[in-house]
Amino acid sequence: MGLLLLTNEARAKTWKRVFDDAGEEIILSEAAVSNPAAVSCLACWVPPADLSVYPNLKALLSTGAGVDQMPPLPEGVALVRCDVAGISEMVRDWVLMAVLMLQRQMPLYLQQARAGQWETHLTRSASAFRVGIMGMGRIGQLAARALGACGFDVAGYSRSGRPVEGCEIYGPDRLAAFLGRTDILVCLLPLTAETRGMLNADLFAQLPDGAMLVHAGRGAQLDMAALRGALDSGRLASAMIDVTDPEPLPEGHWAWTHPQLIVTPHIGAETDAEAGAQHALEVVRALRAGAPIPGQVDRDAGY
Amino acid sequence: MGLLLLTNEARAKTWKRVFDDAGEEIILSEAAVSNPAAVSCLACWVPPADLSVYPNLKALLSTGAGVDQMPPLPEGVALVRCDVAGISEMVRDWVLMAVLMLQRQMPLYLQQARAGQWETHLTRSASAFRVGIMGMGRIGQLAARALGACGFDVAGYSRSGRPVEGCEIYGPDRLAAFLGRTDILVCLLPLTAETRGMLNADLFAQLPDGAMLVHAGRGAQLDMAALRGALDSGRLASAMIDVTDPEPLPEGHWAWTHPQLIVTPHIGAETDAEAGAQHALEVVRALRAGAPIPGQVDRDAGY
Repeated sequence: MGLLLLTNEARAKTWKRVFDDAGEEIILSEAAVSNPAAVSCLACWVPPADLSVYPNLKALLSTGAGVDQMPPLPEGVALVRCDVAGISEMVRDWVLMAVLMLQRQMPLYLQQARAGQWETHLTRSASAFRVGIMGMGRIGQLAARALGACGFDVAGYSRSGRPVEGCEIYGPDRLAAFLGRTDILVCLLPLTAETRGMLNADLFAQLPDGAMLVHAGRGAQLDMAALRGALDSGRLASAMIDVTDPEPLPEGHWAWTHPQLIVTPHIGAETDAEAGAQHALEVVRALRAGAPIPGQVDRDAGY
Repeated sequence: MGLLLLTNEARAKTWKRVFDDAGEEIILSEAAVSNPAAVSCLACWVPPADLSVYPNLKALLSTGAGVDQMPPLPEGVALVRCDVAGISEMVRDWVLMAVLMLQRQMPLYLQQARAGQWETHLTRSASAFRVGIMGMGRIGQLAARALGACGFDVAGYSRSGRPVEGCEIYGPDRLAAFLGRTDILVCLLPLTAETRGMLNADLFAQLPDGAMLVHAGRGAQLDMAALRGALDSGRLASAMIDVTDPEPLPEGHWAWTHPQLIVTPHIGAETDAEAGAQHALEVVRALRAGAPIPGQVDRDAGY
């Protein structure tokens, strides 16, 4: 019963050390698998097309925070997300950074710097900005707390509308009201059939004029052409996005150099290789013991 | 007993409305002063050279957060800083943004974006970074708390070495130890004879290799040539500065476009005009009542 890891060299090196130290078997390429029946766990970002060559596969483990890139799995194979301490906090920090960068007009100041222009603009304090967070899971709640501590006026939107302490929550029946009161929209939604393409011209039209967008959900939720239109028309004053459509964003794409837009290459939830390996070790051992698998995902809920 | 305000048009307009509403006298230029003996309070960033024309001047009020640009004052004239609620928080937020931007390698990612390059780099979580804050006054303490909440390992340096809850404090006798344990150095020191030119090659040499600098103190504390040398040699990995020497930074200055450096034009503590006017009103009324003046500075301490 071993783990097959398909990843880059740097991560593979760390995982190998952790597994070797623990006396657990790890295989680093499909070519190196001598007995496919001995592979109980596969860790990767996107799995190989044919999983049926591993008849005793019990778990498919994402090496990143997301699992929505994973295909439908055979019966009896658990889907496991990288359940690493600190990964939610890393996304929270990216979101905090992005909101502050938009509030403090960094797209404009970066543009001025390139032109060698020293000019200050009126600033409003954090309390003058109504932040609206779409997706109030663990990361959304962490972000709400951090932004609230900076003085931002924070509300949340979630499919369930479930209450969160210290933060007004809007459900789907009040989406329009949520958007209408949101100066800085933060998307942290998981990718589901419902959220695909959700950040579109119709949604932007419901935000106040000159609103801003922080996107750390998934690229496929964002209509990039609509984003461009909203930035050009002034409907959106600025945006900072960590996910794009397509992804990776090709060289020469307009989004790289739009003056009101800052793009980062999906760095919100970069997982720590060491912590990821430790988690994988726990998964392998839980499988062997028949214990609950840490990080197992309920696929029906879509996240 | 009136207030003479020397400032830009936008701020003057707000102050005039606030003073008019309160029934207090405000004069908006030296040319408009008909009776110099009636001027009890002067509000400005830098005062006119000859203050002796206002024989009954009781207070000189800075329209910004700083007072170190003010000349020595005649006996009996109180120096007052703009004591506006939220101004310390604005600086804290700029510092929080800057530290996150360096931790998350934004100088590199902004450079890549300009080249249309999608490439991720290894990230370490906030807890792997030791932040060292120089200047543990009100803003320093707020910054320490906010950065600590993000998981950064925060220590402080202050002239007094006075203890601060939840944060190890180093005094001048342990400056070398403070610098040696600091991955991200944050300068929030006031400008005094002791701190002028303090951020120099000798200080940078005491930081760990590849350290980072966040500067929100005063331009005259920073040896810009030493900063350039440290960035070019790798001694400093990156820096984000809100104050420069000279200030404003002229067009064409190397600092605007250095790939590892981000410059903002002294926006850390932009004061809200409305709040500033309300504070000035309180100062005028305290002067009349002989009450303690809100925001009065103890000049001997230098801040």
